[in-house]
Amino acid sequence: MDNRQIVLDHRPSGPVDESTTKVVTTSRPECGDGEALIKVAMLSIDPTIRTWMDDAPGYLPPIELGAVVRGGGAGVVVESCNERYAVGDVVFGMTGWQEWVLATPEERFTVIPTGLGLDLATVMNVLGVTGITAYFGLVDVGRVQPGDVVVVSGAGGATGSVVGQIARARGAGKVVGIAGGAEKCAEVVERYGFDECLDYREEHLRRRLREACPAGVDLYFDNVGGEILDTVLTLLALNARVVLCGAISQYNATGPRRGIENTSALITRRARMEGFLVLDYASRFAEAQLELARLVLSGQLQHQEHVLTGLERAPEALNLLFSGGNHGKMLVAVDESVLLG
Amino acid sequence: MDNRQIVLDHRPSGPVDESTTKVVTTSRPECGDGEALIKVAMLSIDPTIRTWMDDAPGYLPPIELGAVVRGGGAGVVVESCNERYAVGDVVFGMTGWQEWVLATPEERFTVIPTGLGLDLATVMNVLGVTGITAYFGLVDVGRVQPGDVVVVSGAGGATGSVVGQIARARGAGKVVGIAGGAEKCAEVVERYGFDECLDYREEHLRRRLREACPAGVDLYFDNVGGEILDTVLTLLALNARVVLCGAISQYNATGPRRGIENTSALITRRARMEGFLVLDYASRFAEAQLELARLVLSGQLQHQEHVLTGLERAPEALNLLFSGGNHGKMLVAVDESVLLG
Repeated sequence: MDNRQIVLDHRPSGPVDESTTKVVTTSRPECGDGEALIKVAMLSIDPTIRTWMDDAPGYLPPIELGAVVRGGGAGVVVESCNERYAVGDVVFGMTGWQEWVLATPEERFTVIPTGLGLDLATVMNVLGVTGITAYFGLVDVGRVQPGDVVVVSGAGGATGSVVGQIARARGAGKVVGIAGGAEKCAEVVERYGFDECLDYREEHLRRRLREACPAGVDLYFDNVGGEILDTVLTLLALNARVVLCGAISQYNATGPRRGIENTSALITRRARMEGFLVLDYASRFAEAQLELARLVLSGQLQHQEHVLTGLERAPEALNLLFSGGNHGKMLVAVDESVLLG
Repeated sequence: MDNRQIVLDHRPSGPVDESTTKVVTTSRPECGDGEALIKVAMLSIDPTIRTWMDDAPGYLPPIELGAVVRGGGAGVVVESCNERYAVGDVVFGMTGWQEWVLATPEERFTVIPTGLGLDLATVMNVLGVTGITAYFGLVDVGRVQPGDVVVVSGAGGATGSVVGQIARARGAGKVVGIAGGAEKCAEVVERYGFDECLDYREEHLRRRLREACPAGVDLYFDNVGGEILDTVLTLLALNARVVLCGAISQYNATGPRRGIENTSALITRRARMEGFLVLDYASRFAEAQLELARLVLSGQLQHQEHVLTGLERAPEALNLLFSGGNHGKMLVAVDESVLLG
C-alpha cells in the first residue's frame, strides 16, 4: 500500500513556494516489534515548522533536504506490536506530512482522551500543543495574577486567542489583543471576549496601546517579535513579565533581523523577558489539558479551527499562518474518516 | 559657612564636558527639627548618574537644570536634630555633588557599620551600592548555581569584578570576564581570579567566547548592553539567565540605539533575561553586606578603589567610567579627613 509524503525539496527564502516541497510516493511502512502503525488523520500546522526549513541552528535540527516535512499530527492506530497502543486508539505526535507513520520506541505518540464529546479538530486545537502552549506560557512563565493588565499579540491566532481567554478566566484586570486588520480585531473582541483589540496595521500603535493600558502592561504574551515587541517594551509596568512564545514576524524575513532597541526598559521597569518551548512541559501536559477541557466544556473558552482538506494543501496552510489568512487553528485533514466523540 | 556645589548647567550630548556642570557656592544649610547636618566626605561615582543628566524618562526623574548633580556619597554627621543619627556617625545616602547636605525625613541616610577594620573607600565600594548590586544581581536575579558557566561584562569594573568573585565563592564551574584592553584583562584574571578574560576590542569576540564556553553560557551578567549583549545571547546554554544590570555602552550614545537582534535565542534556549535595580532591595541590604564583609575579611574578595581628590573632579571621574580609564571603584574624596577603622 502506498504512503504519500511531502518532502523538503529546496530551502525557502521567504514564504514557502512551489519549489519548496514535493509530493513523493513510497510504500507504507511495516510494523515491527515495539512499533505501531498509524494512519494519519489530521496535521497541526504551526509557525515553527517554517523555522525548521531553514538551515539554521534551532531547538531541533533543520529538516534535511529530501526528508518528510516535520510536524505534529493525529491519527489512528491500525496495527500494534507495542502494548502502549491498542488498535483504534487515536494518538498525537510527530506524524510529519504523510499518510502513514510508525510509532517507535524513539518516536512516541500520546493517546488522545476520548469520551469528552469533542471532535478531533477541537482536541487538536485546544487540548493539543496550541492550547497547552497558551496555558504554560501564561500561567507558568508569565505567572498571570488577578488584576493583571495582559496584552497578547497574534490575538486572533490559535494560541493568542486561548491566552486571552485563560487570562480572563484567571481574573486578569484587562485583556488587550493586538492583531492585523479590522475584521480580525472585531473577532478577537466579539468571539474571544478580549476587552479591546488594536490593529497593528493602523498608525500610532504605541499611542493607542498607552491609552488602552494607562497604568502600563503587567504581562505581555508575544507571538510576533520585531517591532511590536519593541513597542510594548516601552509600556511595561513595574515588575512586568514578557513571555516570548514565537516571533512570527521574523520567520519569513529575508533581510537582516530587526533589532530590539528597548531592552533597557527591562532594567528601569525591573522586568523579566523569558522564552519557553512547550516540549519542555511534556510531563505536565495533563495539568493543562484538564483546565482547558474544563473551560471548553463550561463554555468559557471559544475556539475555531480552519481545516483544509488534502495532504497536498499543507504548504498552502503553512503560508496562510504568515499572511494572516487563517481563521483559527490551522489544520489539514489527511483522512476525514477519523472522528472522535 | 560656604557650601560648594556642582550643578547641572547644560544637558550633555555624549560625554560630559566643561559646559555640562559648573561649581557654585551657596551657604551651608541649617539643621532643622528632624534633620541632621552631614559633612560630605566621599562621592560614589556610578554610570547611572550619566543617565539622570538626560531629559528622558527613567527610574528616577532627570536632574533639573541648575540643580545639584544627584549621586550617592558618604559623610559624617556634624549636627543632629533627629534621634536616628548621632554626631560622629558615618552615613551613606544621596549626598549629591556638594560639601554639605541635610538628612531629612524624606531623604534618609544609612549609618555605615564601623569596627570592621575597613577604610571608608573599601566600605563604599564593597559594602556600598556597588557590591550590593553585584550580590543581588548574581544571587537573586541570576540565581547562580554551583557548576554554572558565568560570563561577566565590564569585568574590570567595580561591579563586574565583585560579581565574578562571588560567583567563584558560590562554586561556579567557570568564570569568564569581558573587558577592554589587554592590561585590564590581565588584571581581571590575576587580581580578581577569573578563569579567563576576553578583550572585546580585539576581533572575533564571539568565536573566542565560544571557545571559552564550549557548552554555552549558563549565566550572563551584563553591564554594557549593545553589541556584547547581542553576541552573548547567541551562546546561551539551555535555561540560561541573563541579568541586565546596566548598559554603559549606550549611556553616552548620541545616534539611534543599537537594537538587540538575537532575543529569539531566549525562546530556543528557554532562557530568561531580567533587569533589576538595587534600590528595590533596600530592605535586604544587610544580607548582602554580611556576605560581602565575610568574603573581604577572609581574603576571598579582592577589591580596588580609584580615588580622585577634590569635589570639582567629579565630572572627570564620571567620564573615566566610560573611557575605561578607571581602575576599580570610582570615588571622589571631598574631605579626606574622614577615616573609618
